[in-house]
This record gives sequence, C-alpha cells and structure tokens, in this order.
Amino acid sequence: MDRPLLVYTTFPDVDSALSIGEGLVRDRLIACINVLPGMRSVYAWKGAVEQGQEAVAILKTRKGLQDQVHRALKERHPYETPVVLFIEPTGADAATLEWLLTETSDAS
Amino acid sequence: MDRPLLVYTTFPDVDSALSIGEGLVRDRLIACINVLPGMRSVYAWKGAVEQGQEAVAILKTRKGLQDQVHRALKERHPYETPVVLFIEPTGADAATLEWLLTETSDAS
Amino acid sequence: MDRPLLVYTTFPDVDSALSIGEGLVRDRLIACINVLPGMRSVYAWKGAVEQGQEAVAILKTRKGLQDQVHRALKERHPYETPVVLFIEPTGADAATLEWLLTETSDAS
Repeated sequence: MDRPLLVYTTFPDVDSALSIGEGLVRDRLIACINVLPGMRSVYAWKGAVEQGQEAVAILKTRKGLQDQVHRALKERHPYETPVVLFIEPTGADAATLEWLLTETSDAS
Repeated sequence: MDRPLLVYTTFPDVDSALSIGEGLVRDRLIACINVLPGMRSVYAWKGAVEQGQEAVAILKTRKGLQDQVHRALKERHPYETPVVLFIEPTGADAATLEWLLTETSDAS
Repeated sequence: MDRPLLVYTTFPDVDSALSIGEGLVRDRLIACINVLPGMRSVYAWKGAVEQGQEAVAILKTRKGLQDQVHRALKERHPYETPVVLFIEPTGADAATLEWLLTETSDAS
C-alpha cells in the first residue's frame, strides 16, 4: 500500500500556481493543490537579501510518484531554482488515502 | 513524555474552521487551531477536476490524542471526505511542548 | 551532508515576522522566511479559550543550525511563549538543498 506525500513549493503568484497545479492534477501526478495567497518572503539569494510577494503551494500525492512529480514540477515551474521540499505525513484518514490512490496514477 | 502532533485539514470557510476548532479546544482535544483564509484549490474528485476556495486549518495537539482528535474531527467536519493528514514535528521548544501537554487531556 | 529543516512559528503580525526573519537571514541562520498573513487562531491559554489574528511563519534552514536558530528565535520573538515546532522534510530538490547550504553558515 502506498502512502501520502506532501510537496511544499512557492510560486510568483496564485495564477501560475493554479495553472501548473491543474496540469499536474489532469496528468494524475497529484490529487490536489492548495494555494495560499499573499505570502511575504525574505530570502538570501547569491549573497544578497531579497524581499518578495509569492504564493505557497502544497501538493498532495503518493510517495510512489515522488520522482515523477518532482521532475514534472521542475520542468513546468517558472522559477530557475524553485524551492521543492517533500514532507511525509505519518498518518492519514483512511478515506483521504483511498482518495489519493484513486485519483493518481499507479507509480510505474 | 508525549510529543507534539499537527493535523492538516481544509474547511469550506474560515467560520466553520474556527467553530469546529473552538469546540476541539474546549474539549481539550487540541491546544490550538491556526486557520489560513483565502486558500485556492484544484483537486480531482470522482474523475473530474474541480476548483474551490477553502481555508487551511492546522491543529496542534499531542500524539497520544491522535485517535480521539481524528474521530471527533471526522464526526464534526462539514465535508463527507475531509482531507486529514497527521504530521509529527521532530522537535519543539520545551515551553511549546509543556503548553501542549497542559492544555490538552491526558490520552486515555 | 547536512539536510533541510523547517521551523513553524507564529507572530502577532506580518511586520514583526518579516523584521525578525530578515535578521535571521542576515545572520545566515536561515536562508528564507515565508510569512502567511491573516491567520485566525483559537487556542487554550492558562485554562481560558482565546481568539487571535496572527501571521504564520515558516523558516527554512539546515538541521545543523537547529539549536542556534532555536536560541536566536526565542531571544528575538515578541511572544513570551512562542510556538516553535521543527519539521524535517524527508527530501528536497538538489538545488534547494544546495541553496540552503550556500546561504547559511556552517554549523559550528
């Protein structure tokens, strides 16, 4: 039995997050994207300190698709170096897991 | 010594999240709910691709209460199939952990 | 090779989160802070149930700096008892990890 996997990334705005997220859902690579608007960031970049306004995106998929989601997200992401972090929940509601497995492709 | 547990779920709006969250706090099942407004989602549901506007909720409790929180959240949640994911932090500030343990019931 | 670490905390408002986050970035203790505005909370505090409006902050750093980030965050945080939770991603994009390691100090 596969298990749930979250992907944490950020986009320049809500529209780009939703557009790329919808493509990943249609490709059955993820079951869902949650996009949080209005995020403010401060970050180091090549030694300078930058400020930005972005959107946080949390993608929900299965562990067996991690490599495929990772590759597709990198190819389609508007940033040269997007932040991509994988978080494995230690548990899930049974219906949440069933939904994740039904709505995504078998890892292959 | 028990340890911290986060629960990630989504609600149709901020008010339903706060209302259910407050009930769980009053029942000493969680110490806190953080609700993030204005979340936009794209998700697969029974083979179709849907869009929604929701609120993200992050509940803070202790690991020993996972089953009770899970059951109460499912009973009270307005969705037929809410997303419920459990995330275990690998560490916490000592005062954060003490607060979590003081403000929630002993697991029983 | 060090690995990524997330810190979850909350601030009374976006400005205090950005100000403290920027200081931690300049001190090379974290590579980035993401601040989510408009968070609504319900929480137990000394036996009473309180409501608040806050900002969620997610700090990105490396595991080797956990103790130093923890200490600096506690010293600079406006709350008497801030929530501080550490979450270890189970994976990261290679360029994300390289950026985290380049933009933060070696643990010492």
